Amino acid sequence: MKLYNYFRSSASYRVRIALALKGLSYDYVPVHLVKNEQLAEPFRALSPAQLVPALVLEEPDSAPLTQSLAIIEYLEECHPEPPLLPADMLGRARVRAIALDIACEIHPLNNLRVLRYLVKDLGLAEEDKNRWYRHWVETGLETVERQLANNPATGQFCHGDTPGLADCVLVPQIHNAQRMNCRLDHVPTVMRIHERCMAEAAFSTTQASACPDAA
Amino acid sequence: MKLYNYFRSSASYRVRIALALKGLSYDYVPVHLVKNEQLAEPFRALSPAQLVPALVLEEPDSAPLTQSLAIIEYLEECHPEPPLLPADMLGRARVRAIALDIACEIHPLNNLRVLRYLVKDLGLAEEDKNRWYRHWVETGLETVERQLANNPATGQFCHGDTPGLADCVLVPQIHNAQRMNCRLDHVPTVMRIHERCMAEAAFSTTQASACPDAA
Repeated sequence: MKLYNYFRSSASYRVRIALALKGLSYDYVPVHLVKNEQLAEPFRALSPAQLVPALVLEEPDSAPLTQSLAIIEYLEECHPEPPLLPADMLGRARVRAIALDIACEIHPLNNLRVLRYLVKDLGLAEEDKNRWYRHWVETGLETVERQLANNPATGQFCHGDTPGLADCVLVPQIHNAQRMNCRLDHVPTVMRIHERCMAEAAFSTTQASACPDAA
Repeated sequence: MKLYNYFRSSASYRVRIALALKGLSYDYVPVHLVKNEQLAEPFRALSPAQLVPALVLEEPDSAPLTQSLAIIEYLEECHPEPPLLPADMLGRARVRAIALDIACEIHPLNNLRVLRYLVKDLGLAEEDKNRWYRHWVETGLETVERQLANNPATGQFCHGDTPGLADCVLVPQIHNAQRMNCRLDHVPTVMRIHERCMAEAAFSTTQASACPDAA
């Protein structure tokens, strides 16, 4: 498998964690988002969505898989062990909802193309852009904290005592938040889980700073 | 089951379509987003995420299910017929990716709380806000069009000839786009599928204008 990704893309990092948790090896292909490589050949022809991450399977003629959560669900179906989703349906719904609370409510507001549009097209000042960034991270993580705190299903990780899909999405968002100096002292459960995750090799060895293109 | 939702919320509409496709009945509980009812009691206590839709199951003590895509995956697991995801893993990955192309790349940028922040907190003029809205819908749907056009897996619907998860997400986005006068002539495959969907009762009888709170 080849994973087209970018060291600082948090959606890419989600998939790197999932691959590591599953013990799957892959070729790391960097696509430099700041240099707009996702919009140029050869990546453009490969992936009509022009987004990273994209996972290219060994099977001939199979289109690249896109969208980090769809890729992780695919990996879960193909390689069920260790599971990244709980066995019970209500647990699965909870884990998917936490993942989507981040993937739909926080991350899309703060990705590179959106920040660029705010500054270049809407003429926002740098400080207003940063305020926007922090606002969505801080309020969004507050929602996640409410889902996690005082819920008996929360364990060492977002759901129980083994890492899963929600953790794959949570940790990259915290890395972004820290890089942008967001307030995090109001989300103690989130931060406890983040620290627990970072003690696992699957999370630490795949983080941005450990990537081949991080130089 | 009780579905807490709002007639104009496109995430709510996704779930209404899925419930209708599955032939499941439910009590419709309106939560008026423009009046901020999602932030007040009794909804606030019910749903820590303070977002619609939320699905409350019959089972006692079960927390409300949130996040439209997690709810639909739950319905699919509980009530597998008719299926909203294809039987093959690569097909499932494709359908989920199309759904996420809308749910993560278009919709979050244009929901009510984001538009409010642009105007109230960042002082954007109404016309700039509308330009922002149209930009993300028009460019986002262009990406979806590229995924659908000339792909042999695309049929009468986004994937094959029966409606599924991707259609549940696509149609509400088109309704929003039309309400905001977005350009749509550059996405002919998207629009062909939208029209085909609207010929189905599951899509037409659940649309915003047909909802009890649409008055």
